[in-house]
This record gives sequence, C-alpha cells and structure tokens, in this order.
Amino acid sequence: MNIPSKLIQDAVNEFTKLPGIGKKTALRLVLHLLNQPEEQAEQFGTAIIKMRKEIVYCKDCHNISDADSCSICSNPGRDKTLVCVVENIRDIMAIENTNQFRGTYHVLGGVISPLDGIGPEQLNITSLVSRIDRKEVKEIIMAISPTMEGDTTIFYVSKLLAEKPVNITTIARGVAFGGELEYTDELTLARSIASRMPYENYLIRKK
Amino acid sequence: MNIPSKLIQDAVNEFTKLPGIGKKTALRLVLHLLNQPEEQAEQFGTAIIKMRKEIVYCKDCHNISDADSCSICSNPGRDKTLVCVVENIRDIMAIENTNQFRGTYHVLGGVISPLDGIGPEQLNITSLVSRIDRKEVKEIIMAISPTMEGDTTIFYVSKLLAEKPVNITTIARGVAFGGELEYTDELTLARSIASRMPYENYLIRKK
Repeated sequence: MNIPSKLIQDAVNEFTKLPGIGKKTALRLVLHLLNQPEEQAEQFGTAIIKMRKEIVYCKDCHNISDADSCSICSNPGRDKTLVCVVENIRDIMAIENTNQFRGTYHVLGGVISPLDGIGPEQLNITSLVSRIDRKEVKEIIMAISPTMEGDTTIFYVSKLLAEKPVNITTIARGVAFGGELEYTDELTLARSIASRMPYENYLIRKK
Repeated sequence: MNIPSKLIQDAVNEFTKLPGIGKKTALRLVLHLLNQPEEQAEQFGTAIIKMRKEIVYCKDCHNISDADSCSICSNPGRDKTLVCVVENIRDIMAIENTNQFRGTYHVLGGVISPLDGIGPEQLNITSLVSRIDRKEVKEIIMAISPTMEGDTTIFYVSKLLAEKPVNITTIARGVAFGGELEYTDELTLARSIASRMPYENYLIRKK
C-alpha cells in the first residue's frame, strides 16, 4: 500500500508491531485517530508512554501495581500464608475474576523454556524462595499451564523447595465443568480417572 | 475485569476507544507493550501524537501530506485537468493501488448525510468549486460509493457545477470482474444491462 505521508507511515508501522494487527487494520486505526480531535490522540499516546514509564511491580509478588506493594499484597483480608504461583499477570486477573481465592500471588514472569532461552534465572524464583524463608508461607499452589514447559517449571520449583517447611500443591487437572467426556483428550481423561475424588468434594466444588 | 493498576486501566481504556478493539484485545495489546523495552512504548506513543499534531492536508486536494502540497498534486506527471472526487483518503489509496489513474484527486471528507448531521458545508465542496474556477479542470470523475448518501452527494455536486465548463462523469457501475451473474444484486444487474457498452470497450478494459 502506498501511504502518502511519512507521519502516517510511521504510526502505521508502530501499530503493526502489536500482536494480531496487520497493515490494513493499522491503517484503519491510524486514520480513525486522525479523524479524532488532537487531544484524543495526545491522550492516547501519553497514556501508553506513561503506563510503560511509571508502572511499578509489587516488591513481594511482582504483580503490576501503582505503589510499592500491590493491592492484593497490601490487603489485610488476604491470606499471606497461601501463595498461588502463576506464570503472568493475566493469570492473576483470571483467578481474581473467579472471586474464590483469598490468598496472595507470586508472578514467575514466564516458564522454564530452554528453546526460548528462558532458564530459572530469568524467572522470579529467587524472590519466591526468599519470600518463603522470610514469611510464614504454609502452602504454595502451582497454578501453571499444564504444558511441557509448565510441568518442567513446577518440577524445578518443587525440587528447590523440597527441604523447606512448605506444602506444594498444584491446581486440579480434569474434565472442565460443561465439558463433554467424549471430546476430552485422552491424557486429561485418563488423569481425571486416576485422580478421582470423593463425591462429597464434588458437591462442595459445585457450590 | 479487575485491572490492578490505574495506569494499565487508562491505557486499556484508550485502546478500547479505537474501532474494533474490545476490552480483552486492548488488555492483550497493553500487556504486550508492557513487556517491550521502554523505548518501544515511547516510540509508539510519540508516533501517534506526532502524526496527529504535524499532519498537514494538501491545500488543493485535502489529501494527507507532509508538505503544503501533496505528493500527487506536486507531481508534474499527473494530469491536473482530470480530478477524481473521492469520499476519503482511503479511497485515494485504493485507486492509487490500481496504478491506472494519472489525474489528481479531491477529498470531500465524507458524503452528505442529514441523519448524521453532515451537510454540504461540512464537506470540502467550496474548495472544489474554487479549484474549478481557478484552474483548467476539464473533467470531474465522481468516485463516490453508490449508496443513498453517495448518490445524494453526486447529485448535489453535479447541480452545483452544472453551469461550469467542466465534464462530470461517474465511475462505471456494473458486475465486478470475477463476479458471478447469479449472485449479483438486481439493481446492479439491471443497471449493467441498461448501461451496456460496446464490446471493443470491454476488450480495452480487460487489458
């Protein structure tokens, strides 16, 4: 496409760097912003720059935050002895949306993936260990995606914490509520039978 | 969704103002920018602000431009006596992509649409008339979408220019190349029969 202005071309190029945005969509977005009042475009650009520049990560759990300690860690109503270890911030939002979990979190910032050059030292694992050493954490829930890399990460962390006085659990794997048995993959189905649970527990979960 | 930071929330809100971007997509884009180096986010924001602030419109044709006169109007190889009237800048890009048109353009900036509060005075019609008065424009091609509003606009402009020494034409309406007769709407099909053309012209167009 022949864009008759370098300014527009630059803005389009910036948009196409975002995931899932191609050249045509980028042009549509840029021309939309062009039709808006100048303040609107200014506000848009400033919000992005400000967000990236001023964002702080919680010193305890590495969640995004506006202050030194995030809204979850600084909430006296949350159970500090229960820590849910997640891959990224979106996982926290997903779990928070369930309104069921009253503990705190720890964001690893990824999973161990040698192919992508991500080893344990790139992740927030040291701070998890020192959190356990420092505070009265009683249980660590590993809420990591059940992929090859996720399982490796869970294995690494559990090995590392084996000597510590802390309980390590993982979130339950099984057939999803609303999911149909015949469309569930074999691994999940086999594991869900192997790790079957008493019917009373099922009733509790359904509530 | 519960976003634990006002900075992120603000950035997400700005993204959702763009057409076709919902809350989930906006969050994905913002978290992507958050993972990029600070310069990347800065470059993104600055490109948008700069684009909106410094963009100039060509004084003749109202095309977007980096200078007083756009690259098409200032090109001595383009035929200034032939002016193609379009609705917006994207139409110019679409026509330019065909590499067939060697004339110049005039961007109306929309079509007459009383329901949306757009009358002739909101469009760049006065400047079109003065362009015709001032320069040696011989032919005006109305390349406006064949909608109710588009047809109204064509009618209005042609009435206005009726007394001027200028030829007014519209782009051909008909069955698209590659289109199948049986799936063409009745209006287009009926008109394409009424405005049939000599076979020799068809051969020229196919080239």
